[in-house]
Amino acid sequence: MADRIIRVNMKTLEITEEGVPSRWAGFGGRAMTSAIVAEEVPPTCTPLGRSNKLVFAPGLLGGSAAPTSGRISLGAKSPLTGGIKESNSGGQAGQVLGRLGIRALIVEDKPEDKTKRYLLEIRKGGVTVVECAELAGLGNYDTVAKLVGRYGEKKSAFMSIGMAGEWGMTAASVAVTDRELRPTRHAGRGGLGAVMGSKGLKAIYCDDSEVSIRKPVDKAAFKAAGRRLAKALAEHPVTGEGLPTYGTNVLQNVLNEAGGLPTRNFREGSFAGADKISGETQRDTILARGGKVRHGCHSGCTIQCSRIYMDANGEYLTKGPEYETIWSHGTNCCIDDLDAIARMDRMDDDIGVDTIEMGATIGVAMEAGLAAFGDAAGAIELLEQVQQGTPLGRILGCGAKVTGQCFGVDHVPVVKGQAMPAYDPRAVQGIGVTYATSTMGADHTAGYTIAPNILKVGGFVDPLKPDGQVDISRGLQIATAALDSTGMCLFVAFAILDNSDTLPAITDLINALYGLELTLDDVTSLGQTVLSMERKFNQAAGFTAADDRLPDWMRTEPLAPHNTVFTVPEEDLDQVFNFVE
Amino acid sequence: MADRIIRVNMKTLEITEEGVPSRWAGFGGRAMTSAIVAEEVPPTCTPLGRSNKLVFAPGLLGGSAAPTSGRISLGAKSPLTGGIKESNSGGQAGQVLGRLGIRALIVEDKPEDKTKRYLLEIRKGGVTVVECAELAGLGNYDTVAKLVGRYGEKKSAFMSIGMAGEWGMTAASVAVTDRELRPTRHAGRGGLGAVMGSKGLKAIYCDDSEVSIRKPVDKAAFKAAGRRLAKALAEHPVTGEGLPTYGTNVLQNVLNEAGGLPTRNFREGSFAGADKISGETQRDTILARGGKVRHGCHSGCTIQCSRIYMDANGEYLTKGPEYETIWSHGTNCCIDDLDAIARMDRMDDDIGVDTIEMGATIGVAMEAGLAAFGDAAGAIELLEQVQQGTPLGRILGCGAKVTGQCFGVDHVPVVKGQAMPAYDPRAVQGIGVTYATSTMGADHTAGYTIAPNILKVGGFVDPLKPDGQVDISRGLQIATAALDSTGMCLFVAFAILDNSDTLPAITDLINALYGLELTLDDVTSLGQTVLSMERKFNQAAGFTAADDRLPDWMRTEPLAPHNTVFTVPEEDLDQVFNFVE
Repeated sequence: MADRIIRVNMKTLEITEEGVPSRWAGFGGRAMTSAIVAEEVPPTCTPLGRSNKLVFAPGLLGGSAAPTSGRISLGAKSPLTGGIKESNSGGQAGQVLGRLGIRALIVEDKPEDKTKRYLLEIRKGGVTVVECAELAGLGNYDTVAKLVGRYGEKKSAFMSIGMAGEWGMTAASVAVTDRELRPTRHAGRGGLGAVMGSKGLKAIYCDDSEVSIRKPVDKAAFKAAGRRLAKALAEHPVTGEGLPTYGTNVLQNVLNEAGGLPTRNFREGSFAGADKISGETQRDTILARGGKVRHGCHSGCTIQCSRIYMDANGEYLTKGPEYETIWSHGTNCCIDDLDAIARMDRMDDDIGVDTIEMGATIGVAMEAGLAAFGDAAGAIELLEQVQQGTPLGRILGCGAKVTGQCFGVDHVPVVKGQAMPAYDPRAVQGIGVTYATSTMGADHTAGYTIAPNILKVGGFVDPLKPDGQVDISRGLQIATAALDSTGMCLFVAFAILDNSDTLPAITDLINALYGLELTLDDVTSLGQTVLSMERKFNQAAGFTAADDRLPDWMRTEPLAPHNTVFTVPEEDLDQVFNFVE
Repeated sequence: MADRIIRVNMKTLEITEEGVPSRWAGFGGRAMTSAIVAEEVPPTCTPLGRSNKLVFAPGLLGGSAAPTSGRISLGAKSPLTGGIKESNSGGQAGQVLGRLGIRALIVEDKPEDKTKRYLLEIRKGGVTVVECAELAGLGNYDTVAKLVGRYGEKKSAFMSIGMAGEWGMTAASVAVTDRELRPTRHAGRGGLGAVMGSKGLKAIYCDDSEVSIRKPVDKAAFKAAGRRLAKALAEHPVTGEGLPTYGTNVLQNVLNEAGGLPTRNFREGSFAGADKISGETQRDTILARGGKVRHGCHSGCTIQCSRIYMDANGEYLTKGPEYETIWSHGTNCCIDDLDAIARMDRMDDDIGVDTIEMGATIGVAMEAGLAAFGDAAGAIELLEQVQQGTPLGRILGCGAKVTGQCFGVDHVPVVKGQAMPAYDPRAVQGIGVTYATSTMGADHTAGYTIAPNILKVGGFVDPLKPDGQVDISRGLQIATAALDSTGMCLFVAFAILDNSDTLPAITDLINALYGLELTLDDVTSLGQTVLSMERKFNQAAGFTAADDRLPDWMRTEPLAPHNTVFTVPEEDLDQVFNFVE
């Protein structure tokens, strides 16, 4: 299929197709969504208003046979941060859109009648929009079940929002189905589900029947480069062993030992119950119950860090909860019950909310006294409020900042309105630089300094000292912005950092697929271009150096066990984006 | 009493006194609070955290015999806007603090134990802090009743917060008692009640026994200038007739006729029920029930726009609700029942919330379907939720922006997070410039262009056209910042605009009181100095030109009956503060 861009106007229901303009030709994933948002969305617009646009874009390598390249990027002005947002997800939709040649799907405007619900159908033959009143108010699991009933399982991928997105909750995610057609993968961060909901768009059906995998311009070179990448991933201890064996939650024990595991709403840096919810324990539990480890969330993944989690009766409950989810709902709330955490993971996926934001929110709610730290049943009851859309649920569904505001809590772990992930900046100073300065708000994936700070991948920079943190964060943010444009899973970064042939292999894959001649410098340059576009959008939206700061208490309240505070100087933070004019 | 500054540390309960440093010698009211906040509060601090400070300052003329000079300014970093805030109030406390020579009271830090409640006692003999667990959770009426029981009525003035401030609600006000010792006057805007609550400070008792009125350095000159000011106020049709006769609500019919009266959550510009809740109707109702018109909210007021409102049985219900309150709870919610509005006014005063923010919030809640427009009982039920601190009440108590966010409403009339007052910028373009650019967020008092746009006071600038609006807004913002520093009621501005002897009279009053030689240029210069300090604080807190904007829908949704949108160009808005380096 010819590469093209699809526009859907949700007010007029008009659908148009256009070619990819030359200025976007080398863009995919995050580069594509950020370019479109930066060019077409007024930076000061109301995020849930008519002028915002929601953009879906597979990566440059999406739909091809390149290993681990199926991530899909979603972009818009975020109702959570007020800035530009790219949130990417695993699941199968990126591969399907890639195969269909859809380089970007742009959803514009909104219906006059707020009660309308629409469904997009994307096939080889074209794109159609139909009403779907029967899906209104459903969670993602029921939504997808109905869609599977309607369209069948074969060659299908679905994206949808739960009730949270329909209600405009600013923690709302967009769910992407995995290969088992379960809504377990999410573009979680930044409330893009609320943007989708504001446009009356409940779900998207993607069908790649009658289209084949993307054909490289240079098949032989593509195949050879793909082998080099697969080999590098297989040989690296993180992507070849740690992640496949234990999943992302391999980090629970690692961060606990490093004293950088945020516990009790970021009051402490280690958790007595960590071992009960560690990746090791999780693996044993899954295997004992007949679940699955070494599972890929999309076709073509060679890392296989996904898993399938069964309840005590051996029935499917949810995908294996990720480290971030187990930390946010577990550690951060002092809950050491893996089954309770898995149940909350399932609820989050069904309601359609970001698990990082929700766990951080429950932590703030516990600080406000709405439940006790460690009270799993209380935490589940809070999530039920979100599911039911009660007033308390509306507060919680808007995330940690709003919850802190509504209950007068002054200890709220957010940057640019977005909750911090599972690494405390006082014990891992580099990630504090990323949280503070990322165009995305607090986001570990934007520049994962855990690699050099904790895992000693790509060198080592002492996590407790301010020295060198700005440089590693800047370098990783640039590399990540480029990687997020390829559709590659971020986990390839481990191999890139330790194996000098990995980035050339990825570059060769892109060159071979499109018939280009990109150099390694071009990749760095792409990352800088993406970050520059995002940074300028945010500046026009009103962001300044004052927004590139951690909460003030992180500089005054020491974190046990190291009893350190965040010490990277503010003037150094202001140097992270020194490459932007 | 010698002029001095008092500091109270709410963590250590230490109280210190210091002289007025020379750089603040010519400052009072807003100049004093903004100077202290700008110098001592970190602009990026958490507003309810330890680093914020709450400053109380009477005006330069406070405590003197100058007419209408008893307003008190409160300042802090606002938890509602995230910027600097000065909110001033009538009531008696400004006069009492002025007589005691307290030029500023600075409340710092916060108790370790959040459940503690403290009471400050300010007398000639000194300042003491005592615990007051018995006041925890009480509304302002009960709080003041207990305080009157404890300290007596004579020579007393009280400031206090209701439950909203204790709970950290960002719409929370600080109440100031009137001459009848009722908590009817409020520093309403910007959530300063929440800052007071965060510091564990429930109330302040001010006692001016054994001190006399401030003695001017030049008694004769002071007396003569006072007479000139009183004469100008008596002779102007607004301050001499309109306001004393009908109160501030004289504006209801005026704005309705001008088509600039925000109705149905800023969807329309006129209200069919306006006459039923107009100042004329209110006057007749008050007089028929034995209430009071021509009442002063503090000693020394010669305008007397306050009034006392009785219920249908002739029992005291509340002060005569002001225009802003009748508009926000009435017009904006399509409620034309004066008694229902008066009941909500009483509830707001008791809970301790800003009536502008609360009415705008109820309008947004009605837009979200939580009650029907026009449903007075439904609106009262919403306020009861705030009073009870239910989750819904927590949302509403945090104002219009948070309510819009929690319920996914995209039509929210706020600037910098603060709700717009009773003039629609699409029909009164000048006030749109003030709302957009004021350092305070949407605030009519910051630069009241209604005078030239609608009332033809100080000239006339066509309210429907963009021309000339920036100049009038800038001039009025500068003059207001100076006036807010004197303790003068803003209503003296009408006389200033139409009578060239009024500003000289005020300048002469200050000169005679302190033995100074200020010129009229010095007054303009003071206004610019105040605005510059505030603007720079906001810039350091992260505000940019993008924050100096109205909501985007005000440029696209025409307002009936004129069917105009806001058309002042953005580049012109960016010229309002052209005097700040």
